[in-house]
Amino acid sequence: MTTATKARVLDHPSRAEIRLEGVLHALSDAVRLRIVSDMARADGAELSCSFFDLPVTKSTRTHHFRVLRESGVIEQVYRGTAKMNVLRRDDLDALFPGLLDTVLRATEVQDARRDD
Amino acid sequence: MTTATKARVLDHPSRAEIRLEGVLHALSDAVRLRIVSDMARADGAELSCSFFDLPVTKSTRTHHFRVLRESGVIEQVYRGTAKMNVLRRDDLDALFPGLLDTVLRATEVQDARRDD
Repeated sequence: MTTATKARVLDHPSRAEIRLEGVLHALSDAVRLRIVSDMARADGAELSCSFFDLPVTKSTRTHHFRVLRESGVIEQVYRGTAKMNVLRRDDLDALFPGLLDTVLRATEVQDARRDD
Repeated sequence: MTTATKARVLDHPSRAEIRLEGVLHALSDAVRLRIVSDMARADGAELSCSFFDLPVTKSTRTHHFRVLRESGVIEQVYRGTAKMNVLRRDDLDALFPGLLDTVLRATEVQDARRDD
């Protein structure tokens, strides 16, 4: 089997494996909060990694997406050569009701305060 | 001035200095979530560090309390030789409405699932 024909599937925790501590850690970074906020606004649309306007290097960007995926906050799938990202909103809302929305609102409040 | 007469005051961020990322990081650990849950149940009462039944060494315990204090989640004050702890609920609720309660509820949900 060559690399070209091998399906590239990335590891994700199942819903039952998602831990609150991991989700909070994933959200405890300004760049990752921005990625998650952008995804929430996309309302379930798949977004490529390059969609996000982030002030970091490519390898740091990859790292942030991996932390989000491995904690269960996002799902990453390959569509051809592009890695697409989507928020695992149903899983997070089922496991920790209100958490994602509360954090997103807190992010907005903090950003608004900074811009004052 | 001798050490004995010098008031020992610990550094805390002001309300305006508290950052969402720092608070989420402080909460992204099972031991610290347990400390914060116990404090929330104490409803504003000052609790000594030794009050908490934690499966960690004394130095790790001290580290966890420091992370909580430096992020603005708790206030630590000396009463004689005892270091007392209290949740900064008013500050957190004012800055990030609903965040603390949502995280505490998520902790309970996760603990209940583990005990099933």
